[in-house]
Amino acid sequence: MAAKPSIPKGTRDFSPVEMAKRNYIFNTIREVYHLYGFQQIETPSMEMLSTLMGKYGEEGDKLLFKIQNSGDYFSGITDEELLSRNAARLASKFCEKGLRYDLTVPFARYVVMHRDEISFPFKRYQIQPVWRADRPQKGRYREFYQCDADVVGSDSLLNEVELMQIIDTVFTRFQIRVCIKINNRKILSGIAEIIGESDKIVDITVAIDKLDKIGLENVNKELAAKGISEEAIRRLQPIILLQGSNEEKLATLKHVLAESETGLKGVEESEFIFSTLAVLGLRNAVELDLTLARGLNYYTGAIFEVKALDVQIGSITGGGRYDNLTGVFGMPGVSGVGISFGADRIFDVLNQLELYPKEAVNSSRLLFVNFGDKEMAYSMGYLQKVRQAGICAEIYPDVAKMKKQMSYANNKQIPFVAMAGENEMAAGKITLKNMESGEQSLVSVEELIAAVRK
Amino acid sequence: MAAKPSIPKGTRDFSPVEMAKRNYIFNTIREVYHLYGFQQIETPSMEMLSTLMGKYGEEGDKLLFKIQNSGDYFSGITDEELLSRNAARLASKFCEKGLRYDLTVPFARYVVMHRDEISFPFKRYQIQPVWRADRPQKGRYREFYQCDADVVGSDSLLNEVELMQIIDTVFTRFQIRVCIKINNRKILSGIAEIIGESDKIVDITVAIDKLDKIGLENVNKELAAKGISEEAIRRLQPIILLQGSNEEKLATLKHVLAESETGLKGVEESEFIFSTLAVLGLRNAVELDLTLARGLNYYTGAIFEVKALDVQIGSITGGGRYDNLTGVFGMPGVSGVGISFGADRIFDVLNQLELYPKEAVNSSRLLFVNFGDKEMAYSMGYLQKVRQAGICAEIYPDVAKMKKQMSYANNKQIPFVAMAGENEMAAGKITLKNMESGEQSLVSVEELIAAVRK
Repeated sequence: MAAKPSIPKGTRDFSPVEMAKRNYIFNTIREVYHLYGFQQIETPSMEMLSTLMGKYGEEGDKLLFKIQNSGDYFSGITDEELLSRNAARLASKFCEKGLRYDLTVPFARYVVMHRDEISFPFKRYQIQPVWRADRPQKGRYREFYQCDADVVGSDSLLNEVELMQIIDTVFTRFQIRVCIKINNRKILSGIAEIIGESDKIVDITVAIDKLDKIGLENVNKELAAKGISEEAIRRLQPIILLQGSNEEKLATLKHVLAESETGLKGVEESEFIFSTLAVLGLRNAVELDLTLARGLNYYTGAIFEVKALDVQIGSITGGGRYDNLTGVFGMPGVSGVGISFGADRIFDVLNQLELYPKEAVNSSRLLFVNFGDKEMAYSMGYLQKVRQAGICAEIYPDVAKMKKQMSYANNKQIPFVAMAGENEMAAGKITLKNMESGEQSLVSVEELIAAVRK
Repeated sequence: MAAKPSIPKGTRDFSPVEMAKRNYIFNTIREVYHLYGFQQIETPSMEMLSTLMGKYGEEGDKLLFKIQNSGDYFSGITDEELLSRNAARLASKFCEKGLRYDLTVPFARYVVMHRDEISFPFKRYQIQPVWRADRPQKGRYREFYQCDADVVGSDSLLNEVELMQIIDTVFTRFQIRVCIKINNRKILSGIAEIIGESDKIVDITVAIDKLDKIGLENVNKELAAKGISEEAIRRLQPIILLQGSNEEKLATLKHVLAESETGLKGVEESEFIFSTLAVLGLRNAVELDLTLARGLNYYTGAIFEVKALDVQIGSITGGGRYDNLTGVFGMPGVSGVGISFGADRIFDVLNQLELYPKEAVNSSRLLFVNFGDKEMAYSMGYLQKVRQAGICAEIYPDVAKMKKQMSYANNKQIPFVAMAGENEMAAGKITLKNMESGEQSLVSVEELIAAVRK
């Protein structure tokens, strides 16, 4: 007998119910992206390793899935090299292609290769799987989808504003209450500048983040332990204790950062974003959060992160502004700003809060029971009319026991069942059963359609 | 300067316009699948090589993209093995995973692994990319999508009937005129049986297929050249000359195949399919075609193929009934029937016949021109209301020359442009321009929404 099959660790099968839920997530995000004028692209699952390598740091290079060259992959490798067994070095000889690690690098490559046909500013979205040879663990997979939207070729802060509107609209549609946190890399740089500790910015944000938990005294102790001078810690006090509305926080920062041109630019950018959003009126809270330091080496302006309010889970969306997306591929000066929805975490949040709309699980509305050839032929006419009315419906294909057919309807969560026997055929009607209430009635095809339509 | 980036040969980037067209194709197919009670699943891009190897023949094994093991992929390989440079043999040591080659084998693996949670008959569809290390050529890619629907765990011919209805509905929605060709493996087996040449069935169908081009005499000559006896050729005459309606053809076959139980079973199955379809009434022609022999080793009952009538191109959809889908994974007795739409060819046909509906290219309906901070702020209010009405719209994010903004609208095929300057702001209205007619008018937000709505 054949061995029991399995799938690679860190990968998943998606069942019909899971797929329906995932499609609900992707379709919602997609619709909102369209509403804001974003257009979809897709790039190949495989990229040349020369495109991918060196873009994600040394650790990232190791996490790339590499595809063995077709044919004689030993050619061009000497015996000596083979016997060296240097896996990292020889990987690029055995393999010239790798699986996409994220959507950003392939997007940068796309922009460079298609620069002549793109009309900038380019508002693109992309919903595709990515692959990482990470150690699999709860909630971390080796194959997962990313849902990115970016605007490239525009410095306007209106893009930041619209991306926040998109986040607000998407989570409103999901009925997930969130807090949208915004920071700005230039403010962080300004803080580092005025205290003369530009390399300690991550230590500083980590320490500030602990204020609620450990109190001011311990935060200051931790900063000192990290080698930050007494004078610098003194200057940091108004920032550590920053409170009030976003406007109040920005006013304080303007004062503290008065001597840093970069810092003031960051405050000014944030003022524009917050004030424009205040006029437009989001349904979710937006908050200036200086402890937000995600992807600090990458982002150059605004930084975003979204936290769910009613579930304990990490960030469910993130993003920010970056400079020089395509410089590494020989096309300098293309700046952009983007967001990325974390589909897997959103899936978990919707599950936990039971927020999936019933319609999202798109099973058939109606099953015709199959009692035999004559009844089947009769039912097929009804079935055709029901489908022509745009209603998803099916007939049990085999002549099987009633119980089996009913349990099929139950398992697929089909809400209505139709039955035709001698009596129904004589009357030119059909019996309709509501699977939830158990109610039965003899109906015409028009009545049937009206009853099962959502 | 960095090297010019490229993508692996045989792969493609899809631009916004191409994506919109592809989504139109996938969405149409998806909707019809749902209408018939099929539910979507997805399987991982990677499968264990033990799942994939040996399922597609020796040639297929070579065309699998294999993924190099992470970490030290040399471990467990001796120096001697390395120096043997046996690429085929060592592939399974360097690699334990491969990219999906089709959707059928992963589906079989899925059915076996999830047998306890599936309620049979299982009507599943799957739309995902597959990868083959084929030599790339015009119309053949190394990464392409398959769109499969299968019913497994049911022998009922109603499934064949419904799959033909699905094909008919999908191509009717595409407005592509097609001929649906149906054959039956059992009829072919019956023919081979009665002429005593069961190993020559492919030669026979190939020869019969040439009747129109080379005439009866040459067909008979070719059959003789293939080593088919005079007596057998004599018996084949009514089959070679088979003509008339599907009913007439089946009547002739019933007569010719009277002595073959298998052959008669094939005729009977076909009679049910054609007669049931005749009652239901398809919009496209359905034709019994004995020359259809695709995947002969695989299919065991009905065989389907769809030809476009108005474009010279190979089959655009195919399928058939098979036995024992999952036997290779230790689960015997699961028979099924399925179809697969050829998305790439359908894309080409729709392009050639210019059948894409205008709405398929889902760009924004409206662009707000950006004249400066004050005008922008004014426009943002309008933009928000337009989007709240469900209309896809955008504002040009930068303050740029009018010409640049207009050409952006043109390139993205945005049909309407809205402009707000001093006058509009004073009047509390906005100027709407129809980009096709050039017509301009001063409108309120309600009038704006009514005008740009599709």
